[in-house]
Amino acid sequence: MTLAPIEPALKEAGTFMEDVLGELLPEPVGPHARVVEAMRYATLDGGKRIRAFLVLQAGRQFGVDRRALSRVAAAVECVHAYSLVHDDLPAMDDDDMRRGKPTTHKKFDEATAILAGDALLTHAFALLAAPETHPDPHVRIELVARLAVQAGANGMVGGQMIDIGAKGEITDIGHITRLQRLKTGALIAYACEAGAIMGKASLQARHALTNYAQDLGLAYQIADDLLDVEGDPALMGKAAGKDQSAGKATFVTVLGPERARAQARLLADQAAQHLEVFDEKADLLRGLTAYVVNRRA
Amino acid sequence: MTLAPIEPALKEAGTFMEDVLGELLPEPVGPHARVVEAMRYATLDGGKRIRAFLVLQAGRQFGVDRRALSRVAAAVECVHAYSLVHDDLPAMDDDDMRRGKPTTHKKFDEATAILAGDALLTHAFALLAAPETHPDPHVRIELVARLAVQAGANGMVGGQMIDIGAKGEITDIGHITRLQRLKTGALIAYACEAGAIMGKASLQARHALTNYAQDLGLAYQIADDLLDVEGDPALMGKAAGKDQSAGKATFVTVLGPERARAQARLLADQAAQHLEVFDEKADLLRGLTAYVVNRRA
Repeated sequence: MTLAPIEPALKEAGTFMEDVLGELLPEPVGPHARVVEAMRYATLDGGKRIRAFLVLQAGRQFGVDRRALSRVAAAVECVHAYSLVHDDLPAMDDDDMRRGKPTTHKKFDEATAILAGDALLTHAFALLAAPETHPDPHVRIELVARLAVQAGANGMVGGQMIDIGAKGEITDIGHITRLQRLKTGALIAYACEAGAIMGKASLQARHALTNYAQDLGLAYQIADDLLDVEGDPALMGKAAGKDQSAGKATFVTVLGPERARAQARLLADQAAQHLEVFDEKADLLRGLTAYVVNRRA
Repeated sequence: MTLAPIEPALKEAGTFMEDVLGELLPEPVGPHARVVEAMRYATLDGGKRIRAFLVLQAGRQFGVDRRALSRVAAAVECVHAYSLVHDDLPAMDDDDMRRGKPTTHKKFDEATAILAGDALLTHAFALLAAPETHPDPHVRIELVARLAVQAGANGMVGGQMIDIGAKGEITDIGHITRLQRLKTGALIAYACEAGAIMGKASLQARHALTNYAQDLGLAYQIADDLLDVEGDPALMGKAAGKDQSAGKATFVTVLGPERARAQARLLADQAAQHLEVFDEKADLLRGLTAYVVNRRA
């Protein structure tokens, strides 16, 4: 199987999404401009846009218009950015650097960062609900309903709650897997599911994509844990060794680097196998599985 | 004009909403139970449920089923509760008491309070998007779209941004009015608008209700500012004199208590006048205008 070159495709999607987000985020005008500046700071000019890429590629399997998909991709990036802004706060992970820049509360202040996160989450729903996203309100309301589940207390927020509440208590791989399926997996799964919803995909195709996303998300997380131990902070744009100094159990601290790396490869292969029902239009999604485990940042 | 007795109706709606919220909030089970406990703590057992009452009464003008309306009312109360949880944080207004109980970050911790607020906001959208709220997806997506506008950077969050950024700088009544129209007015207006959306109201009826809500919201806020100066902390369940010690300009510091009181009465009368297009089913909404300016807590 020859896979499509993934890095140029990711790069192109990243540039495209930068324009889309610049256009779809509010403009910083009026007496509340500061919170909009912080929203834009937290969202623009950074990140690999993997989640946006998943929305665009999943929707492409069903011939969905790219402009419409880009609005859903922007909503997912807004939710991702909000989660990073809140997770970086002093009361949470207390991080000073993110994507090579000061974190939002460092650049602005804590109050503005809290509000910017709140507004980004709210804006994601505004983007999904607007008629420009899809003419059929059934599609738009399903996008909203599924995001509200995957981002909420039983999804991403629940995962972060487990993570910050569990310092030192989680030591087995089952627990870490469940935690990460919520904390990072839920939004990655939503990205693929949203593309399927936009394409009014069959249940079979939709499940294939969400299964793909779940395995990809875990592989991505293990690679992240490996980078935290072995990565180059200059390439990553954030500090390394954070998990260890925080006493956090990760895939790497529990399995050791060798078994963790093998597990990431296994999950990446498994992710690609879920895509059997798709044709060569899914080659970039297939290529992404190898990319996430081999990336250096 | 004889008005319907408002206090028993508010009390009944409060009891009703307590049951509804108890049922519609997630159950605190699983490894992330703590964030759900904090969501329930922040939302249940407190508040006058004015916003929920507005949803129920606005929808009643168009004969909308009360059970369906109660889901929208619950969503609005979730958004209100989230805004209080985040506003009370040390980085924002730094309040220890709310509704006669320790604030959520005092009862739990800051990280849990941030996450509980995030999850409450997300849950509001989940409630609106579910088919149980209304069989017509056009109605549900309009509920979502309008909430996302009124709660976001150009609505409630924007108002809070202006408020915390403006210590001592705002001194004229026009600025305070604009600030409060966003900070508290936007969600109060949404509560009425949501009832109209649920009832597929005419544009005329919808505008009448949102105009009513805007004047009611300002009257309510002026009464709040007066209570902060003159109120009994034991009745209010929170500290008094906060605005003054924070050096905040309010309707009362700018107008003085007498003119502020007169202005609140004027706005309350004006609010009631917007309801001329409605029949006696709107008498509780009319009665609410006098209630909000005369309340002692």
